[in-house]
Amino acid sequence: MGSKYPPSMRCCLPLWTLVLEAALIVIFFFFTSYDTSSQDPKKLTGTFRVLQDVTIMVALGFGFLNSSLRRYGWSSVAFNLFLLALGVQWAVLMDGFLEQSFRKKVVIKLSSIKLATMSAMSVLISAGAVLGKANLLQLTLMALVEVTVFVTMRMIDRQHLSMDGHLSMMHIHVFATYFGLMVAWSLSRCLNERVMEEKNQTAKSSSLFAMLGTLFLWMFWPSFNSALLDVPKERKNAVFNTYYALAASAVTAISMSALARPRGKINMTHIHNAILAGGVAVGPSCHLITTPWLAMLLGFMAGLISIGGALCLPANFNHVLGIHDTCGVHYTFGLPGLLGGIAYILLIIYEVSWIKKSVYQLFVGTGTLSLAVASGLIAGVLTGLVLNLKICKAPHAAKYFDDQAFWEVRFLT
Amino acid sequence: MGSKYPPSMRCCLPLWTLVLEAALIVIFFFFTSYDTSSQDPKKLTGTFRVLQDVTIMVALGFGFLNSSLRRYGWSSVAFNLFLLALGVQWAVLMDGFLEQSFRKKVVIKLSSIKLATMSAMSVLISAGAVLGKANLLQLTLMALVEVTVFVTMRMIDRQHLSMDGHLSMMHIHVFATYFGLMVAWSLSRCLNERVMEEKNQTAKSSSLFAMLGTLFLWMFWPSFNSALLDVPKERKNAVFNTYYALAASAVTAISMSALARPRGKINMTHIHNAILAGGVAVGPSCHLITTPWLAMLLGFMAGLISIGGALCLPANFNHVLGIHDTCGVHYTFGLPGLLGGIAYILLIIYEVSWIKKSVYQLFVGTGTLSLAVASGLIAGVLTGLVLNLKICKAPHAAKYFDDQAFWEVRFLT
Amino acid sequence: MGSKYPPSMRCCLPLWTLVLEAALIVIFFFFTSYDTSSQDPKKLTGTFRVLQDVTIMVALGFGFLNSSLRRYGWSSVAFNLFLLALGVQWAVLMDGFLEQSFRKKVVIKLSSIKLATMSAMSVLISAGAVLGKANLLQLTLMALVEVTVFVTMRMIDRQHLSMDGHLSMMHIHVFATYFGLMVAWSLSRCLNERVMEEKNQTAKSSSLFAMLGTLFLWMFWPSFNSALLDVPKERKNAVFNTYYALAASAVTAISMSALARPRGKINMTHIHNAILAGGVAVGPSCHLITTPWLAMLLGFMAGLISIGGALCLPANFNHVLGIHDTCGVHYTFGLPGLLGGIAYILLIIYEVSWIKKSVYQLFVGTGTLSLAVASGLIAGVLTGLVLNLKICKAPHAAKYFDDQAFWEVRFLT
Repeated sequence: MGSKYPPSMRCCLPLWTLVLEAALIVIFFFFTSYDTSSQDPKKLTGTFRVLQDVTIMVALGFGFLNSSLRRYGWSSVAFNLFLLALGVQWAVLMDGFLEQSFRKKVVIKLSSIKLATMSAMSVLISAGAVLGKANLLQLTLMALVEVTVFVTMRMIDRQHLSMDGHLSMMHIHVFATYFGLMVAWSLSRCLNERVMEEKNQTAKSSSLFAMLGTLFLWMFWPSFNSALLDVPKERKNAVFNTYYALAASAVTAISMSALARPRGKINMTHIHNAILAGGVAVGPSCHLITTPWLAMLLGFMAGLISIGGALCLPANFNHVLGIHDTCGVHYTFGLPGLLGGIAYILLIIYEVSWIKKSVYQLFVGTGTLSLAVASGLIAGVLTGLVLNLKICKAPHAAKYFDDQAFWEVRFLT
Repeated sequence: MGSKYPPSMRCCLPLWTLVLEAALIVIFFFFTSYDTSSQDPKKLTGTFRVLQDVTIMVALGFGFLNSSLRRYGWSSVAFNLFLLALGVQWAVLMDGFLEQSFRKKVVIKLSSIKLATMSAMSVLISAGAVLGKANLLQLTLMALVEVTVFVTMRMIDRQHLSMDGHLSMMHIHVFATYFGLMVAWSLSRCLNERVMEEKNQTAKSSSLFAMLGTLFLWMFWPSFNSALLDVPKERKNAVFNTYYALAASAVTAISMSALARPRGKINMTHIHNAILAGGVAVGPSCHLITTPWLAMLLGFMAGLISIGGALCLPANFNHVLGIHDTCGVHYTFGLPGLLGGIAYILLIIYEVSWIKKSVYQLFVGTGTLSLAVASGLIAGVLTGLVLNLKICKAPHAAKYFDDQAFWEVRFLT
Repeated sequence: MGSKYPPSMRCCLPLWTLVLEAALIVIFFFFTSYDTSSQDPKKLTGTFRVLQDVTIMVALGFGFLNSSLRRYGWSSVAFNLFLLALGVQWAVLMDGFLEQSFRKKVVIKLSSIKLATMSAMSVLISAGAVLGKANLLQLTLMALVEVTVFVTMRMIDRQHLSMDGHLSMMHIHVFATYFGLMVAWSLSRCLNERVMEEKNQTAKSSSLFAMLGTLFLWMFWPSFNSALLDVPKERKNAVFNTYYALAASAVTAISMSALARPRGKINMTHIHNAILAGGVAVGPSCHLITTPWLAMLLGFMAGLISIGGALCLPANFNHVLGIHDTCGVHYTFGLPGLLGGIAYILLIIYEVSWIKKSVYQLFVGTGTLSLAVASGLIAGVLTGLVLNLKICKAPHAAKYFDDQAFWEVRFLT
């Protein structure tokens, strides 16, 4: 119980976040107003439903997805909500400032909250790699930077590469993964292998909570992939394809996990991550694919890659580079996201050669994917440097992965 | 294991509730019929969606919100469902009898089930204060009385104060809190401090269940606050404002909880309660507020007040008055509800002085809030007296907060 | 820890399922295409919502409903998802082949995925009886056979008995129960009573997970019962009646469970099962009932029967016949399903004698119910025989109900 917790946290963190929240209120006072144009009430209800689905995914799905750490369940759920609540407010402002002109007030619509919630998801993905190694102040800083960079990247995609909103959003997985990995890299340098091993375990009922989060993500992923598509036909395709890709990746992930291990035993952590891989991989091209088998094939391959990554990456890649990826973000979102980006490019190549579409589209596809990876890497390294500054009062490595560093724990278990 | 459980429970409780259910069926047989008018199918779907959101909030959200007690998890979830199922049936009848005339049959529409579910929520809020100190028969009695009083209060609001349905529903938090506190007061007089302290603890995985309930309430609160608004613009405002208030109160609650404690550690129980405060506080005025900053300010203040209440109330107010508020209903719903009522009155004052609205509205606003507090207090005291009668066979104080008094427990943990 | 797990699993199971998934992709490549006809986007959204509700029920509700076994929580949730993902793909193909002609490609609509998800539910119901006694390969085989038989049965209902889709779907509970019981019978012959007793226990937090699953089923059952009804009035009736039946059965189940036991203690496992009985029983006639009391009466009786079955069946019926029904499928879905089928026939008799409806409808009602029971029994016995073949490498009875046989378990608890 006698955990020696940096006392600076006491005055530092809560004051900063309270001041930040007050500052946000002031900024909203000066720079925003609600959309007062009369809208079709039915369209409003539709947008509200999609917003709610996405909210369920980010608040509940991501919150519990990462809760399987034995001693870090509370922090992962509560910090996830904190980052979400903060990230949404910040992303609404950023989106407004960058999209609309600076001269007049930012007009907030229901769809801009939807967009902001999706942008805030980038923080939650990255947090999965950093979890347990950063205090709340560091996570807050990371959220502000990451949302800003991600919104800027999407603006560049849209304005300079004339990319549609859906595709630039679907690169969120790749961007957020590499951002998170770079931040984790800068925080995990002094990590004691033995301590980490002991604390970074899962518990039986925690794993069921993580499964709950995974299931919510699995069930609502079709909503996420179709959230930014307005054409009914594209929307329908997106729902179909995501559904099939998820079904295929669930079957593949469970089979592969048993195949990969001696004695054929399945690894629960792999399952949490790999059954979602299909939804990630099909994201960028989900509105273009017109046959179920292609979506299923993508889901199949995503499941293979994700389980393969789960087996190889922690031991080789991450160990050599010194990156400790707490929740396996790299093989949950990163590799399937890359697969999805490449699949989109292949699909465009096919369309260019057969349907004589413009080659320009191909350059744009390659460009946005590279931009997502590059901006994630660069912004991640810079953010990691900032978070290592003394002013952030990072927790000591011995306190990593421990709820007791942040929470009043009065019970015996 | 050898818990000495009052054997009277055996013959008393189940027979009463079975007879009650049979009586309800007979009453429905004589006095109700379905609405057979043909409705717009799209409007029907919309109402059904809102009903489902509210059902998720009450069945799941409230069920798990109060499940963090170490030895009382089963009871809180199952009794919650029992009270909900009973309360909805009773509220449909009461609503029908009081609103429509007694001469003809009560016509049940989908919207009347929605209304009844929201009325039944008052029982679930009050049950949070009483939980662990009453047996199921007492809770059943409480449910019947509370729903009757609440529906009557809303009818007075509507018919004599010409209040709209939304506002009179939004006083549910204040009414139910003071009703529950008064009942808890009459049941907690002989409470042994030490026993209570030992049993009234939270466990690690229980806290995650409570967090799950909290998250469901947090996510669906916009649906609750906009459920009774028919004008699309008011509805949109309600969704916007609730969303912002909840985001602000989540950030504030987590920050404040760390700031308030020595060594800056966050208290999980505070978080469960305080992140919802924003939604409660913005309720009465959510359709009138036209700028995000005002909703965020309300959420910010609600978070402060709720955490402040969590720190001061149990030690001072409740201890002096001898009220044991099991799940902190007073600072989760009571204080933010009062703040919301006052905010509504201030908003009306502003409108009266600037937009030259009728002063009558101001009197009505003050009147309904006072009525909610007063009827909650009075009906709570009377109900508490009835529940203390011998006929109810209240559990002995040593059996408080213990699942074993009500459940067959065969496992070792 | 030193569990001796059949090594054959290693090469056998994952390869088979991977090959199966690959084969499915190939079949989809040759035989299916998406529906490209332009649809009303609003109807599309409506279908999508219903699909999502049903998905929540099957993935989350059934997954966690059966998770209360102390050592089998992981398997029940993950295998449930696996069977769902596989079953949906297979059911879409079967539905397409049997309904549409074989000559042209199967056209996949959003509504065919909805139908397939509902058909796949039959596997999840049956799996409740078999759970813990079969490995994943056996469950996979069972899923393929059961979906095929169920889809064929529904086609016979529709084409030869001119039954509507709703009613033939509502016999899913009866069909799946008797199918599952027969399979469980053939697998549980060599079951050691003592070992089973020890492992087949519930744990405290597992029970809360099971309650979570139950609540999700409870909340979304109105969506399930109205999913295949297109006439708005019938749809409304279905929602109303299911809602009331569920409310009545929840109250009845909790009361009865306390009444039935010495000392009036409630049994958690009974609650999980019996509060859903109302929804099952009202299924076949939910669109015909026009008064709430009838639905409530059905719910009341279903609660009584379900609790009665829970008390008598395991000790008498199952024990004598040597059937071990792991999760009580017989009294959760079987008996209430039979009650529902009989209630439908009585309702038709009433209509025949009073409203002078055709007697033909009566024969059809009796015929489909008998067909469901008979085909469930016969197909179940045959499937059970196949699953007992050496090729399936069934786990040894000592490994029943144990997560460690299938999962990498590295933690201490």
